[in-house]
Amino acid sequence: MSVPSLPTAKAIQVDTRGALILDEESPETRDSRGIYLPNYVEPVSHIAVDIGGSLAKVVYFTRSPDPPASPSIVATRGSSTVSDSFTSGSSPSSPLSSSPPRDNPLSGSPSNPRINGALTPAILDGPHHGGGHPPTVSGLAALDHSALHDSLLRRASVQHFPGGSLNFERFQTEHIDDCVAFIQSLIERSAQLNGVSIAEMRESVKIMTTGGGAHRFHELFSEQLQVEVRREDEMECLIEGLKFFTLIPDEVYYFSDELIHSVSHPVRGCLNGKDGVYERPSPDPPKYAVSFESNPTPQLPCLLVNIGSGVSIIKVDEDGSFERVSGTSLGGGTLWGLLSLLTPATTFDEMLSLSEKGDNATVDMLVGDIYGQDYGRVGLKSTTIASSFGKVFSMKGGKKGTFSAEDISKSLLYAVSNNIGQIAYMNAEKYGLDRIYFGGCFIRGHAATISTLSYAIRFWSKGTKRALFLRHEGFLGAIGAWIKNFGEEGAREAQR
Amino acid sequence: MSVPSLPTAKAIQVDTRGALILDEESPETRDSRGIYLPNYVEPVSHIAVDIGGSLAKVVYFTRSPDPPASPSIVATRGSSTVSDSFTSGSSPSSPLSSSPPRDNPLSGSPSNPRINGALTPAILDGPHHGGGHPPTVSGLAALDHSALHDSLLRRASVQHFPGGSLNFERFQTEHIDDCVAFIQSLIERSAQLNGVSIAEMRESVKIMTTGGGAHRFHELFSEQLQVEVRREDEMECLIEGLKFFTLIPDEVYYFSDELIHSVSHPVRGCLNGKDGVYERPSPDPPKYAVSFESNPTPQLPCLLVNIGSGVSIIKVDEDGSFERVSGTSLGGGTLWGLLSLLTPATTFDEMLSLSEKGDNATVDMLVGDIYGQDYGRVGLKSTTIASSFGKVFSMKGGKKGTFSAEDISKSLLYAVSNNIGQIAYMNAEKYGLDRIYFGGCFIRGHAATISTLSYAIRFWSKGTKRALFLRHEGFLGAIGAWIKNFGEEGAREAQR
Repeated sequence: MSVPSLPTAKAIQVDTRGALILDEESPETRDSRGIYLPNYVEPVSHIAVDIGGSLAKVVYFTRSPDPPASPSIVATRGSSTVSDSFTSGSSPSSPLSSSPPRDNPLSGSPSNPRINGALTPAILDGPHHGGGHPPTVSGLAALDHSALHDSLLRRASVQHFPGGSLNFERFQTEHIDDCVAFIQSLIERSAQLNGVSIAEMRESVKIMTTGGGAHRFHELFSEQLQVEVRREDEMECLIEGLKFFTLIPDEVYYFSDELIHSVSHPVRGCLNGKDGVYERPSPDPPKYAVSFESNPTPQLPCLLVNIGSGVSIIKVDEDGSFERVSGTSLGGGTLWGLLSLLTPATTFDEMLSLSEKGDNATVDMLVGDIYGQDYGRVGLKSTTIASSFGKVFSMKGGKKGTFSAEDISKSLLYAVSNNIGQIAYMNAEKYGLDRIYFGGCFIRGHAATISTLSYAIRFWSKGTKRALFLRHEGFLGAIGAWIKNFGEEGAREAQR
Repeated sequence: MSVPSLPTAKAIQVDTRGALILDEESPETRDSRGIYLPNYVEPVSHIAVDIGGSLAKVVYFTRSPDPPASPSIVATRGSSTVSDSFTSGSSPSSPLSSSPPRDNPLSGSPSNPRINGALTPAILDGPHHGGGHPPTVSGLAALDHSALHDSLLRRASVQHFPGGSLNFERFQTEHIDDCVAFIQSLIERSAQLNGVSIAEMRESVKIMTTGGGAHRFHELFSEQLQVEVRREDEMECLIEGLKFFTLIPDEVYYFSDELIHSVSHPVRGCLNGKDGVYERPSPDPPKYAVSFESNPTPQLPCLLVNIGSGVSIIKVDEDGSFERVSGTSLGGGTLWGLLSLLTPATTFDEMLSLSEKGDNATVDMLVGDIYGQDYGRVGLKSTTIASSFGKVFSMKGGKKGTFSAEDISKSLLYAVSNNIGQIAYMNAEKYGLDRIYFGGCFIRGHAATISTLSYAIRFWSKGTKRALFLRHEGFLGAIGAWIKNFGEEGAREAQR
């Protein structure tokens, strides 16, 4: 019976050949779509959690012979307008409508509808589980009874069936108990599916934690889950995650020079740095499309700008060594905090959709408001923002209510994004790095944010540097923690 | 009769020898105290106005043989704690209580109490005014009748009496009419004091305007005042102003290395960059004192960071040539605008005094809030702010009212000041400049702002760069415009 020869754990850590990004189930999961790894074979018995100041991100792997859903159309077409595929739920053409539910019979469980499949610990591999009643493994139901089926079933029960999915989940750090409960059910479900006791399952499961909360919540996780909990350094995990995601086809996206130019200069020619004039960052960027990197290439050295509640700026050298060289406290938490005080919005996505309807010119003081014209001599257009919120104070001493939530949201989203772009550029310039990756849960695939950061980098660098983004922007730390453990476990496997 | 030999206009433009900074009349005039120039002799017939996005700044010169008030104690003592001399009115030991009213008999006029003395146009110098009834010139009343008196009177009437004061006034740009009215009365008063008709006075008076409003309000000024109005480039005026103010004794102030070190490292030795550890910027800086530059030295090359509604960052070379190399829209207007929406404060000084009573830790997410400890590996103390306003969103979705105006003000003042300090440092580093001057009406001599900017520069530059401040921080553009005209008028004078 022919079985494809599979690479050993030593040869690779995570086999990303043929990796597919799955459909999103809703705009909510825009940045947390599963990744199917058809050639990945080793058992995985750990769950990774990256606990940040505002959000806790979870990554786990579940085995299945087939992708839970057909690869995303969005993911595979070379480029798509951001308003189609990246804006928040309010977008009419959101994939929400067109995406089928994942074909996992277990995904509809009332307790934790979000759980997909089961963990498959290496420890369960052995005579005491190899025989007897074969466990139901997600996806196998589809196969009819045959020699192949038996063989596959056996292989599945002993965890050597190739293929499976990386699953991504997000929780609010203030509701960390939800996150613990989710992992608890995942462990219980996995015990059930593998036909073992919870005790056995707990022995073979490990939680890899990173992010600030890894320290703060260490006791909570070990006591509640009664499994081994290991802490990993946040920055190391971010870099590991960046290295992994940049290997996934159609994961990385960006504005192509041509795109930016065709959009900002419909008529004139030439874009390559020298005599190309670059569009200033603006809260009203022209509609544009992004390009996806279908054929990943090595991305180091680069600058990683991780935008969560706060912002960390990390220089990554060609050999993967890194240093946190800068950062700013003006990050997602600043925007969310101020907008929760200034608008009725209660979620970040609400704030983003508010900002889409706003006009910042009612609150921002533009160069034209001060000069009545351009200040050409220093290259400031009349539409350039001279002072964010600069109109508020003078106008009736800025009585609250005189300004719309939409306008305030747009102004502040732009101010924070542009400031991050400016500081990121200056660091990239200082260290001579041309690739600037933006990660973290701030971006949310939001058109205005992506375009502001992209235009800021293009403008300040005169087109010499490029802003790069990741579909799984918020999960760098989590996937990094997941991978860090994998290495040794895979190695252990290989020695059997 | 002996008259001191005076330098010609050719030799100097503005004779700053023996310049004295006058007492402040109230905390309101903290940054607009008069400067007495005992050796300055040429007639001055122009008024300079720098019209920014939020404030219009006015500079004019009035002649008097004696300083209107004794030189400020603050100005002449080498160093003083900022909380004594630089905080807003709420400070108990504010010079307010101790400062005598200016001994100018005319300064109490009901129409415009703020007007001091009169303009003294060169054109009035001549036979048709030399004789006849001598005009009352402010200050001369003190002299008894004598040959000297007649001679002085004559000299005064023909504008060659040495000594006089630079006067500084501030108006809100939204109330530009108040500014126009002030200048109108100044012209009328000057005509009266010089015993000439308003028409004659108008012919000899010129308004030098700069700042964005110079373009926007050009017609308003020429039509309302019926005098010549000339526009000057904003950046040029800022640099001229910087060059002038840095010649005034006790105008420039800064944290001395010893001061910073003794404060941040009571025990350890060594401060010179290398192995000195520099205090992180913090909203709660240690109490400190500043040093005043009593013996001005050339200050170019340097970086000028002008913080008004928005922020302009200007590189100034040794020869005085300059370029606006950067800036940010997160400036004074941003702080004033957001705080006018988030607090009951209606003036910037109210916002500053609110911030003095606040605790930012209730709204800011600190490294310790995320990690439960320092993140030593990347050198982040638990007290470092990870995310400005980062606690607001998670806490009850940040319902307005749950956070105090004081805490919000402190957090936001720090966030804006620190961000400006960070961007300023990166530009100073990029252009290899060690002197970083902070000007503009944002600073207001406020302790927390000055310390935040100073600590940010010291921290990021590891002590290699220094933040420098100016008493007349808000008047660089105005004095620059005033000086630009002086040059040619003085020259014209010298040819007589």
